[in-house]
Amino acid sequence: MSKKTNAAILIIGNEILSGRTKDLNTSTLSLWLNSIGVIVKEARTIPDIEEKIVDAVNSLRKIYDYVFTSGGIGPTHDDITAQSIAKAFSIEYEIHKEGYKILEKYYKPGEFNEGRQKMIWMPKNAKLILNPTSGAPGFSVKNVFCLPGVPSILKSMLGGLKNDIVGGDPILSHTISLRTVESEIAKSLTEVQNNNKDVEIGSYPFFQAGKLGVSIVIRSEDQKKINICETQILEFVKEKKIDLVNKN
Amino acid sequence: MSKKTNAAILIIGNEILSGRTKDLNTSTLSLWLNSIGVIVKEARTIPDIEEKIVDAVNSLRKIYDYVFTSGGIGPTHDDITAQSIAKAFSIEYEIHKEGYKILEKYYKPGEFNEGRQKMIWMPKNAKLILNPTSGAPGFSVKNVFCLPGVPSILKSMLGGLKNDIVGGDPILSHTISLRTVESEIAKSLTEVQNNNKDVEIGSYPFFQAGKLGVSIVIRSEDQKKINICETQILEFVKEKKIDLVNKN
Repeated sequence: MSKKTNAAILIIGNEILSGRTKDLNTSTLSLWLNSIGVIVKEARTIPDIEEKIVDAVNSLRKIYDYVFTSGGIGPTHDDITAQSIAKAFSIEYEIHKEGYKILEKYYKPGEFNEGRQKMIWMPKNAKLILNPTSGAPGFSVKNVFCLPGVPSILKSMLGGLKNDIVGGDPILSHTISLRTVESEIAKSLTEVQNNNKDVEIGSYPFFQAGKLGVSIVIRSEDQKKINICETQILEFVKEKKIDLVNKN
Repeated sequence: MSKKTNAAILIIGNEILSGRTKDLNTSTLSLWLNSIGVIVKEARTIPDIEEKIVDAVNSLRKIYDYVFTSGGIGPTHDDITAQSIAKAFSIEYEIHKEGYKILEKYYKPGEFNEGRQKMIWMPKNAKLILNPTSGAPGFSVKNVFCLPGVPSILKSMLGGLKNDIVGGDPILSHTISLRTVESEIAKSLTEVQNNNKDVEIGSYPFFQAGKLGVSIVIRSEDQKKINICETQILEFVKEKKIDLVNKN
């Protein structure tokens, strides 16, 4: 695959590491990034500990073109992403004037209390990411984009972010689901992969309605290359008399 | 919180980073590890690339007491976890005799084909992790435990693993759900956290049945400490006339 713009996702939150909450944001961010031609190369989940956030941000922002963080930008004591990002970049942590104005307008008079004001303490000169759902903006510093942890709010903020991300052609994918087990097709599938080295071919077993199956996922930014792989896969599928399955 | 046994989770698989599949295994592993007194300090998701797996395993196994990997131990070309673990530990990658016997018995005569035999190529002297669901075992090398990616199979293998993990007292948690927003309770909750520094208190906004709420999660291995926090939280909740919510 040609050199594409890449990104890492950093999920910040004890609730994911305790198992209490299942992470939905990696999937949301990945699908969106793929659609604008950015490949996600790594995702990390770390606890609400300043040192861990600083270390992870400083490590990831140097390796990848973009870093997207999720979580820790709310008003409570365990929301320490903004101060940690300021520390990671060694810049001041202060009230963001533009952010202040946004929230001052958003809340009724008298409701813009101390807790809410915490949400517009940010790294100096951070660029705001507008929040159409609940007012409090996210922000970016250089190639690091900080979004909230609540999945529906995060999702609503991606539209406003698109112009800040330079991606490439969308990464296309095609899935072929088969009534078989992986070991029956492993050898033939390896041959197809070897014949098409610049296409990513994944094989994923599934159980559905009590039956075993395998989904083969072909990914590339080039639809023609996907079609060539598909033809080669369907050839051995026919030869082996394997049934195709309709699967969502 | 006292020094507890800790662990990292390493999810190996392009399907998570493409957003196609939502990761369920981090949550399963975290809940199980918590129940046997092991704190999960980090989770990473990386693609099916040998170099990435070797680097991540070698970095995580030195920082944390245990590393649990998920994915990449099946029969297809994209299953490269076992060879990567062998490389990470600089040990040979070969047919595991005990594993071979298990799968030879598991499959009908003639069905133990080349694809399936790939599944018992492992790092030399790896310790097997039995698989009650689908035969093919996982394995461990020192403090690194390798499990499959299919959530139901991974889950079924944890029972057989318990004796290999030295944990501590289970980490207990208690959740108080409130009909409020975070900014209303942020200051009071910070005070409770400051008065109970060795207890982990998290605050998580939620939307349920069209209404906003906040879940406060108190975590500690000591039920008494949890109870003390709960009392202090319920005090300010009563004072602020905030309603409690029944939430799963």
